Order: sequence, then C-alpha cells, then structure tokens
Amino acid sequence: MNATIISIGTEILLGEITDTNAVYISKMLALYGINVYKRITVGDNAERFKRILNMEYADCDIIITTGGLGPTADDLSKEAACEYFDVPMIFHKDIYDDICGYFERSGKAMSQNNKKQAYLPKDCTVMYNPNGTAPGFILEKQNKTLIMFPGPPKEMIPMFESYAIPYFEKISNQRVFTKNILTYGISESEADKKLGTITDFFPEITYATYAYTGMVRVRLGIKFDRDKHSPILEKAVEKAVELIGGKYVYSTDAPDMQTALVELLKANNITVSTAESCTGGLISKLITDVSGASTVFECGICSYSNRIKSGVLNVSEDILSEYGAVSHQTAIQMAENVRNIVGSDIALSVTGLAGPQGDERKPVGLVYIGISSKRGTFSKEFNFCRGRIRTRDDIRILSANAAFALAIDEIKSIKY
Amino acid sequence: MNATIISIGTEILLGEITDTNAVYISKMLALYGINVYKRITVGDNAERFKRILNMEYADCDIIITTGGLGPTADDLSKEAACEYFDVPMIFHKDIYDDICGYFERSGKAMSQNNKKQAYLPKDCTVMYNPNGTAPGFILEKQNKTLIMFPGPPKEMIPMFESYAIPYFEKISNQRVFTKNILTYGISESEADKKLGTITDFFPEITYATYAYTGMVRVRLGIKFDRDKHSPILEKAVEKAVELIGGKYVYSTDAPDMQTALVELLKANNITVSTAESCTGGLISKLITDVSGASTVFECGICSYSNRIKSGVLNVSEDILSEYGAVSHQTAIQMAENVRNIVGSDIALSVTGLAGPQGDERKPVGLVYIGISSKRGTFSKEFNFCRGRIRTRDDIRILSANAAFALAIDEIKSIKY
Repeated sequence: MNATIISIGTEILLGEITDTNAVYISKMLALYGINVYKRITVGDNAERFKRILNMEYADCDIIITTGGLGPTADDLSKEAACEYFDVPMIFHKDIYDDICGYFERSGKAMSQNNKKQAYLPKDCTVMYNPNGTAPGFILEKQNKTLIMFPGPPKEMIPMFESYAIPYFEKISNQRVFTKNILTYGISESEADKKLGTITDFFPEITYATYAYTGMVRVRLGIKFDRDKHSPILEKAVEKAVELIGGKYVYSTDAPDMQTALVELLKANNITVSTAESCTGGLISKLITDVSGASTVFECGICSYSNRIKSGVLNVSEDILSEYGAVSHQTAIQMAENVRNIVGSDIALSVTGLAGPQGDERKPVGLVYIGISSKRGTFSKEFNFCRGRIRTRDDIRILSANAAFALAIDEIKSIKY
Repeated sequence: MNATIISIGTEILLGEITDTNAVYISKMLALYGINVYKRITVGDNAERFKRILNMEYADCDIIITTGGLGPTADDLSKEAACEYFDVPMIFHKDIYDDICGYFERSGKAMSQNNKKQAYLPKDCTVMYNPNGTAPGFILEKQNKTLIMFPGPPKEMIPMFESYAIPYFEKISNQRVFTKNILTYGISESEADKKLGTITDFFPEITYATYAYTGMVRVRLGIKFDRDKHSPILEKAVEKAVELIGGKYVYSTDAPDMQTALVELLKANNITVSTAESCTGGLISKLITDVSGASTVFECGICSYSNRIKSGVLNVSEDILSEYGAVSHQTAIQMAENVRNIVGSDIALSVTGLAGPQGDERKPVGLVYIGISSKRGTFSKEFNFCRGRIRTRDDIRILSANAAFALAIDEIKSIKY
C-alpha cells in the first residue's frame, strides 16, 4: 500500500516553521508497513491542490494531508477535495456545537467563519478535534482514501491516535516491529560494516544506521502479519550486539544516552550529580528531560567562571592559575568536589572550549570530562574538532554524550 | 521566479530524520524574493526523479535538490538529471584529486565507488565540497536551472553560501528584508488583530505572526530592488510596536527571549545567576546558548531535591516543610540565596511541577518564578496548564520564557 503525505501551508514553504507533522506521520505509516511514496508541501490553493490529488492518486492509494482546514476564506483544501471526489459538503450540527463549546470554554469570541468548519464531505468518517476548532475526516471513495488533518501538531497528533491508527489497524494486516541499538565510540560506516552479515543470519530482518552528534543508532526491523509474534527480533538484536561489539553498545532499549544513563542509575539505585562549565547546564537539562530522573539526580552546578569554580565548587585557585580552567586537574576537582557537596554516588564534570574563542595551545573543541565515584576520580581529554569545523552546539552535545558514555562505563565497571 | 525544492532520501520518507535542508533553503529563497512553489520529498529512484523533473519544470524555473549524490550504486539522481537534460557526464580530475585528498586527511580508505562522484554534467558550474566527498553543481539548460546539493546539512549549507547565494544575487534583482518583533504575554490572534492596520500605514509591508511555546514572533518584510535602501522597514517596526503595545514587545532584534535577556544584561553591564528546580538546568543552558553569555552569567544551580534546596541553596527547612518546594516562599529564598552565593546583580529562580505527577492543590503546570535584584525579591505564580494538556517539555519551556520576560521587565523597570 502506497501513501503520499501533503503538508499545506505557506509558512512551511517560507521556511518559517519546520514541518514536524510529516515526520510524525511518516514514522506512524512505517510502523503499519505502509510505504510512504512521496511527501509534498504546497501553499493553500484550491486549484493546485486538486491537480496534485489527480497526479498523486495515479501512484498511491492513500493521501494524508495536514493544514488548510482553518476558518478563513483562503482555507479551501476541503472544498477542493469534495470537488475532486464529486461529493457534496454536509453541515454537522454536533461539530458546530463542539466548536461553540470550544469558544465558550476558552472565553474567546467565535467568528462567523468558524461555522464553515462544521461542513464536511458526505459519507466521511468525522475525526473530532478536542484541542481546536477544525475537525478532520477520513473519506473513502473510488478505491482511494483521503485523510485530512488540521495543521497544529497539538491537534493533529491526538486525532491521529484516536482515528487514523484504528483505521490503519483495520486496513493493514502488517505491523513493523523495530528495536534500537544505541552505540557510542564507533563511526556509522564502521557500525554498518560490522553489521553487514546480520541478514545472512536473519534474512527477514532489515537494518539501518543513523548517525547523531556523538552517537550512532542502529535500527533493526521486522514485518509481521497482525497478531503474530516471534522471538526473531530479540535474537537478531543479540546477534547485532555481538557483531558490532558489546563495548560499543550502550543500550538496546533507550532512545538516547541520557535515558540509558538514568535507567542504569535507577537499576543500580545510585545517584549522580554534575558540575558543568562549557556545557552550561545542558547535561543536567538532558538528565532531567528523562521522566522520573528525580530519583537519581539531585543537583547540578553550572560554574561558568573561574570565580565560581573556586568560590562555589572549591576548585583550588592554584590549580586554576597553574593549569587553567580547561585542564585534567580542574575537571577532576570539579567532579570530586560536586560529589562531596551533593553526597551523590557518582559525579560528572565538564570543562572545555565550546568556542567561539580558543588558541593554539587550547583549541576550540578541547574538552575534559571528569568522573568521580567510590573508586576515585579521573578525567578524560577529548578534542572534538581535530581538523573539522564544529559549532558551539555540536561541541556541547558531543561533550554531553561523552559524559553519559563515561558514566555508564564507570557504573558497569565498578558494578555498584 | 518560481522554485521547487526536492529532498531525496528514503530516511526522510521513513520519518527517521527531519529534513532541515528544505527549511534552510526555503528561508534563503524567501530572502531573494524567489517564490517556493512546492517542496517534494522522494526516495532515490532515477525513473521517478526524471518524471518529477518533467512535471515540476512545467510550473517552475528553478529546481533545487538535496541528497542522492552519494557514492553508492543506488545514488542515481545526478545521472537521471543528465538524461532529462540530455547532457553527458564529464570526469573532473580536480574533483577526483579533492576526493582523494579528503580521504587522505581523514585517514579512511577510499572506495572505488567514490570515483563516480567526480563525474558531473557537461557545462555545469561545479560547487566544490570542502566538508565531504560529493560535489554539487548548478546546471542551466533550456531556460531552466537545476541546482543539486549533497544531503548532509554540514556539507550543503557551506556550499549554498559559497555558490548558490552568488548565483541568486546574479539572477534576482530583488531582496526581501525582514525584521522580527519578539512579543510575550499576548496571544497570536490578539497580536494579529492589533497589527491589522499596519498595511494601511505601510502598504508595501507584509507581516506574519508565529506562535511559539510561550511567545509570539511577528515578522515584517519588504521587497526592494537590489542595492536600494529605504527607512520604511524601520518605521514600520516602530509603528508595529506601537500597535501591538510596547509592554508586550521584548525585542525588535533578538531571535528569542534568552538572546534578548543576554543583550540587555550586556548593555547594562549587569550579571544574572539562576537557581532551578523543575526546569532542571534548561534556563542556564539557554542563557549559555547565546554566544558571549560568559560576560553576564557565571553560575546556575540546579537543585532538584529539597535536600539540595536547603543544603546547597540554604532554603530554610521550615519554609520547605510549611509551604512546600513549589511555593512563593521557596522561589523567593532560592532567588535571594543564589544571588548572595554568586554575588550577581540579579537572580532568577524556578520551582514548579512539570509533571507527570501533581495533585489537586498543586496541579501539574503550577510554577513559581522568583526574581531578586537590588530592590528586593519577589515571586510570581504561573499555571501553565489551566484546562489544557501540556507536556513536561512545554511546561519547562514556558517557565524559561516566563523567567526571561520577568528578568527583562525587572531590568527595564529599575534601570540599572
């Protein structure tokens, strides 16, 4: 089954907003084994939209659109779709009441234009919108399916979950199951090369590698008929870990390094604290992004100046003047001291040059990451640029992922 | 002049990566007054690509593609384009040497496939790629232009700047100038309504409003002929600020609230520190995202537990037990104490419930933001949910923007 996703909105064509709807829908369709054939972004223009429906239905069975369902006069995609399928628009009293209720609840005045939103194609399945005024719909005509959603992701996603997923479960008897393997310390091409023979062992498995800033994710997938289960995917993951090399694998479950770290901390019932310089709070932000992090994380200190490194984190002024803030010695004291101040089981520290300024002796990208645990404290030197141009953001994310990897290694090797 | 942007890549269609290239190119074309007519995403398939070129050139003058220029056998878009325009591929010795040099520098082995990347359409303008192996090109044939870029943004963007911008400057005599107005505390529809008459005063101005989590950006734009300047845009910004209401306007320059705050701190030569609970380091991370923040920000303490609020931030245990961590009293002590510990001119504190847990008395979304300055310390209560469903992420971003707005208000009102 082929699908085309159409995003309607001039603000997308202008580059003013990033189209996250199409990404979400692509992912969901992949899950149901529905092939996304093409994605298109267009402005709101009824004639052009009709032409696109005409062209695209030659190649696909399902068209899914987002946007263009607003109340204003230039939101005409719904009308164009009705013309294309030659079905009339029908007024829905219940939707009209819903829209009135929405305005009452939010205390805003309803414009007469909003009445237009209560009209939908005859014979469609209505997708009610509890988070906005524009309902969506599913229309099946001439062996083709058209599903139209409003544009705001906060309205689209709940509607997708309530209506589109049950619809896909009805029409597709396939499910794609996937598992992620999180690797660190290995390049994408190396990971890809090492995984090469996996399909010799498991011919039904597909795999792909994705490089992120500082880590590589491997995705294994398998298509099953509905309701069938099989242990193949789990066995393939085991084999993949063996092929890649266990020391590079940081999780076969978590979507990112911070989640892998928090899960490991929870499983071992230990806590972590952080002392950050160049990462500026990013590491504590990422740790606390993980829901439930409060059981393993209590404190992070961002010491962005030498005065704070010595005044708050008690790094010795001699060390700061002799070795500088960007040094093994400072990283070690930062980690050791924050661990003592907080009383956590382990502590991470980061000090480095994220740019824009650096010099020959201490170039941009030079970062020291310290780790302190019951067996002692050490620091590791990284040079994240080494001939490559990296943005400030990149260096900070690379530092955070390196810190998470170091903490995971430490916890595993001392077996708390 | 109409342009269509084509992104080539199966990983985009699968929703595995977000297509930031198309967003960047859309923005750049808007700047040169080139109308983006459509955006398309397709997999790597030579026949389909040729069909799309055929269809799209009926409506547009320029097609810009990203991706599909890799060394592997299934990267065939370049070849398909040559067939479409009926031009042969030419071997470029200098590009081949470049590719060899790239592999030498990075210490990796070059595959024979990479030689394919040194072939480009006859008569094209080569776009050299210092950050990768795939060169791009600009081909002008039959009154149409085809510009092909490699997919990785780190390769595409520098090539765009070096080659595509000079090309657009040559072919387009228009420039679109834009100015952003950053507002806080006003809804998108209110801002839009208040701005309604701006085109009566400045008919040549276009405007648009964009809602973000916790703020609304207004963009004013004007098209000029090349090299012409006019004070109209500046005057329109002044008028727009007057129409929206000055108290809602936080910057007519900065792209976001943290940059507006850092710029204001710098201009007044004052420093800020932060004490965060539910935002978990997000505020210090956002402040240090701004290049040059180190002159105004020295320290942020993330106190994620009561033990740290009392032990590190010296919040009185009586206050914590009587009023709880999520209270005016705690927010005030956090701000006051971090300001004293750090010795900064002002200090911000945030304590609240970002979820998932909350209760009736203290629901998810309840956040107290404290601010301390030389004139004293106070806290403001926010309820970011109030009948709406908000994610943990949303509540944290709303809290950060509210904190930035509060700090900007404070600095302006006491005129440091």
